[in-house]
Amino acid sequence: MCILANTAIPSHEIALLFLATGLLLAMARLLGEFAKRLGLPSVLGELLAGVFLGPTILGWAFPHVEATIFPPAGEIATAIHAFTALGIALFLLVAGMEVDLSTVWRQGRSAVTVAVMGMAIPFILGFGLAWMAPRWLGIQPNASHSVFALFVAIALAITALPVIAKILMDLHLYRSNIGMVIVAAAILNDLVGWLVFAFLIGLMGGKGPHAFTITQTVLLTLAFAVCMLTLGRWLIDRILPWFQAHASWPGGIIGTALAMALLCAAFTEWIGVHAIFGAFMFGVALGDSRHLREQTRATLDQFISFFFAPLFFATIGLEVNFATNFDLPLILIITLIATIGKIVGCGLGARWSGFSNRQAWAVGFGMNARGAMEIILGLLAMEAGLINQRLFVALVVMAMLTSLFSGSMIQWVLGGRKRPKLSELLTSNGFVKLQATDRRSAVNELVQALRTKTDGDSVDREAINWEGLSHRVWAREHLLPTNSEHGLAIVRASFMELKEPLIAVGASSAGIDFMSPDKQPAKLICLLLTHPDELRLQRSLLSDISRSFEDSEHVDHAVGVTNFTEFLALLNSGKPAGPPVPAKVESVV
Amino acid sequence: MCILANTAIPSHEIALLFLATGLLLAMARLLGEFAKRLGLPSVLGELLAGVFLGPTILGWAFPHVEATIFPPAGEIATAIHAFTALGIALFLLVAGMEVDLSTVWRQGRSAVTVAVMGMAIPFILGFGLAWMAPRWLGIQPNASHSVFALFVAIALAITALPVIAKILMDLHLYRSNIGMVIVAAAILNDLVGWLVFAFLIGLMGGKGPHAFTITQTVLLTLAFAVCMLTLGRWLIDRILPWFQAHASWPGGIIGTALAMALLCAAFTEWIGVHAIFGAFMFGVALGDSRHLREQTRATLDQFISFFFAPLFFATIGLEVNFATNFDLPLILIITLIATIGKIVGCGLGARWSGFSNRQAWAVGFGMNARGAMEIILGLLAMEAGLINQRLFVALVVMAMLTSLFSGSMIQWVLGGRKRPKLSELLTSNGFVKLQATDRRSAVNELVQALRTKTDGDSVDREAINWEGLSHRVWAREHLLPTNSEHGLAIVRASFMELKEPLIAVGASSAGIDFMSPDKQPAKLICLLLTHPDELRLQRSLLSDISRSFEDSEHVDHAVGVTNFTEFLALLNSGKPAGPPVPAKVESVV
Repeated sequence: MCILANTAIPSHEIALLFLATGLLLAMARLLGEFAKRLGLPSVLGELLAGVFLGPTILGWAFPHVEATIFPPAGEIATAIHAFTALGIALFLLVAGMEVDLSTVWRQGRSAVTVAVMGMAIPFILGFGLAWMAPRWLGIQPNASHSVFALFVAIALAITALPVIAKILMDLHLYRSNIGMVIVAAAILNDLVGWLVFAFLIGLMGGKGPHAFTITQTVLLTLAFAVCMLTLGRWLIDRILPWFQAHASWPGGIIGTALAMALLCAAFTEWIGVHAIFGAFMFGVALGDSRHLREQTRATLDQFISFFFAPLFFATIGLEVNFATNFDLPLILIITLIATIGKIVGCGLGARWSGFSNRQAWAVGFGMNARGAMEIILGLLAMEAGLINQRLFVALVVMAMLTSLFSGSMIQWVLGGRKRPKLSELLTSNGFVKLQATDRRSAVNELVQALRTKTDGDSVDREAINWEGLSHRVWAREHLLPTNSEHGLAIVRASFMELKEPLIAVGASSAGIDFMSPDKQPAKLICLLLTHPDELRLQRSLLSDISRSFEDSEHVDHAVGVTNFTEFLALLNSGKPAGPPVPAKVESVV
Repeated sequence: MCILANTAIPSHEIALLFLATGLLLAMARLLGEFAKRLGLPSVLGELLAGVFLGPTILGWAFPHVEATIFPPAGEIATAIHAFTALGIALFLLVAGMEVDLSTVWRQGRSAVTVAVMGMAIPFILGFGLAWMAPRWLGIQPNASHSVFALFVAIALAITALPVIAKILMDLHLYRSNIGMVIVAAAILNDLVGWLVFAFLIGLMGGKGPHAFTITQTVLLTLAFAVCMLTLGRWLIDRILPWFQAHASWPGGIIGTALAMALLCAAFTEWIGVHAIFGAFMFGVALGDSRHLREQTRATLDQFISFFFAPLFFATIGLEVNFATNFDLPLILIITLIATIGKIVGCGLGARWSGFSNRQAWAVGFGMNARGAMEIILGLLAMEAGLINQRLFVALVVMAMLTSLFSGSMIQWVLGGRKRPKLSELLTSNGFVKLQATDRRSAVNELVQALRTKTDGDSVDREAINWEGLSHRVWAREHLLPTNSEHGLAIVRASFMELKEPLIAVGASSAGIDFMSPDKQPAKLICLLLTHPDELRLQRSLLSDISRSFEDSEHVDHAVGVTNFTEFLALLNSGKPAGPPVPAKVESVV
């Protein structure tokens, strides 16, 4: 009769459930952030969290502890299964929201050519491989030979849209011609890939009693997909403004979107394809509405990507022993064939669409990233009894490797490079509480600060003539004075001997007169030194600085910080919130 | 061996799980928004969602359907139990984050006096009542008499901080003297209330095997609370900037905060008090850090308040039959005693702190709101086998009634009133696509638009001389022309015959010359008509309009909308996001 944990699930089980989810989440965050700092995808760290807490490491070292926290059966196991089922569906909702159909229309034929070729070649290669050597690859004893070959074909043909979008943004290529073609092709690839995979799950069938035959399932799935992309999209675009006008904001839309995604997931699960297909298609229809606000999107994305998704990826490591199932030859073959198929397919497609050779290579490497989507695909196939754990591990490693090299290969091929951000270039010695009261000594102090070496920075300080540099900065400043605006002054100079840009930031609570037109003293003085050839970098850093301190309020916050870490936090995340009260001060009583 | 739904939980069960959560969430949102529009707390609507889908209505009309979607036992039931256990803990995390300890320090002695008196009197009344008539109130057969009396005492003494904060903000009283004392007292009340309740759960004990004796539990709980409020707070304040500087933002902090809250919850559940106490205390420590950013707070708040909390409140209605357990005399007695105790206690405390009689009443009515906290308290007691469903329903109804009347009573006592917002005053006839090309005809068009009656507006249009009004607006505009700024012009005028303010908004894509100093034509023209005595209201509406259209980008968005609903959506939720790509356009290749 009672609902909450205490009677339904005993108290010590509840404590263990909180402990298990808390541990998984904490470990996933820790390793995820660690991976990110090393330039690896954070999903890799999240997977490793499960590897650490699961049979591979914790279960091997302390089997009893692992069995207590993560029991293989019982109420905690059921609860965690249910969480991850929910988590995967919501993750696909967010993935679907990133699909922007208008990009596909705009790119038109090139996108279609790249997508079709980029799917066809790896599909054929994968099918051939799986047809010839199913046992070596890792088919399960009772699985159908042809279904298995189809699965491997799809697994090699898939592309991970979110990973690709991220890489292109990092390289400032997202809005370029080539970037838009890659993104559009990846979107098509995503849509077709999930549709075909949904059918495949229908073909596999054997998941227990089903309400529908395979033909019915296929027809219903097609009908659902078409319906969501036409009527569903149109309806959502109509209803959203009404919601925003009349319901709580943004919570009302968040709650309703989650409810609808779950209902669509229930529907697709019921008709015999997987729940995630429904959530994904709803995400596509929702994300496409021009009325969807940035804050709604961000709240859904951040919470799901940092709560449900890490829980889900970490649980994978709990269930599979990555050490005993690690088969190097299999991994190499899978990765090689997947990569060759994608690069040849997409490359040919790009060439036929009029891109240069070099650009065609970039398109191929870009589309090669597989990311989290491959892992989800593999997991579902493993659970359906189609593939064994050895092949699953190989697919996971392949997904990580292809994602990892995608960005650096594009850079290498196009000769472009990732432009460093302000927060990456600033080191702790570059942040100073200024003693100076005039321009000249402020500049001096900042140059002196840059002279000291800090851990982990790679600047060759011996090669620089610091006295000369200081003099030349001042000479330039004297001739062409920097104007400050709302308390921010940015002193720039270029020097041949600088291999890498140097940045120093000085905070002066008293303020220093920088002859500003607005008569305000400068409280934040930035010194930005670059190589004369790096004009583009200089401009991008300049705009980074101006954007971070866009008004006097932001400048005052920066001057008020007590150490370098707080300053860096300000750069990364905006100004602190202050107490949770409305901004308007009023005293009625 | 496998983890996800397909093998661990059969496919049709997964479909049902998604269906059940999706339905609960959708219904909770629908009724929650409906309640809000009627001026009731949205938690009431969320509770009713469960009443509709549970035994009270759906189970009574279609018992078979209800039993299929929400089975009383099995995997779905376990999964939903686990969701709600997680949901309640995360809800308390958010509640804890609203506790601002510095408010308490600032208010000092008055807050303590009000809090102590406001707890003591209802506590004594509740204890007396429960001691004398335990059976009539609804003690469970095996429960201890004294523990039951203690519980009723606490149940009447509690106060709901989030509800109170919301009410005071709506009335523009949050920052006033009296508002700050109420909030500070409510914070103290919250802290003490949950601490005492945690002990009570320790006293009840009988939840199965426990690792600790009651004395140990009490000592550990105290140690944990003190630790979180001192060392924990200090540590979090130190670590947050480091996180913001080096981890993903805001996701890294969101993920870590959730992990820590779950681990604290596991700890308190393990030592024998409820999991929610740990989550609540962690929330207090986290929310108190001056480094916590607004976006982190908002993301946690919105997702938890609109996903986990509605699921949790709706499930309550699934488990309890509100029709058969509705006992009117009991409800009236409980509500009466709770209200008298709070008003006398807090009122006396406020008088002793130097407030006037009228203000003392306002403090009493403010502190009387109980909201969601009372429901959680009652639920835990019911599950622990302390109280029966009849008393639980009475507590729920009392919580709703006291929250409901709190705001209107304060208004009535202080004579203040809720100032209407722009979006509440604007009706569909008041939004016009202007044909006019000059100032005079624009003003005319807007006045004519206001003349038409719309559904549900209460303005007495017969009493107004429209021709005269139009002339007088123009006469004023002619003498004292309105200046437009970044395309926005606000024409104001006051008239004796207007009982309620009238607002019209005209959009002109061509723009109308309003002799602006920035030489830009006005594209959005607002006409704001008020009674001459309503200067304060006029000013607040004026600032609403300026804030909603603070720059030319916002004005352009407003001019581009196609209907009134989209315009209202813009007012409520800011400008649309556009496609999910970075703002910076760049073409490298």
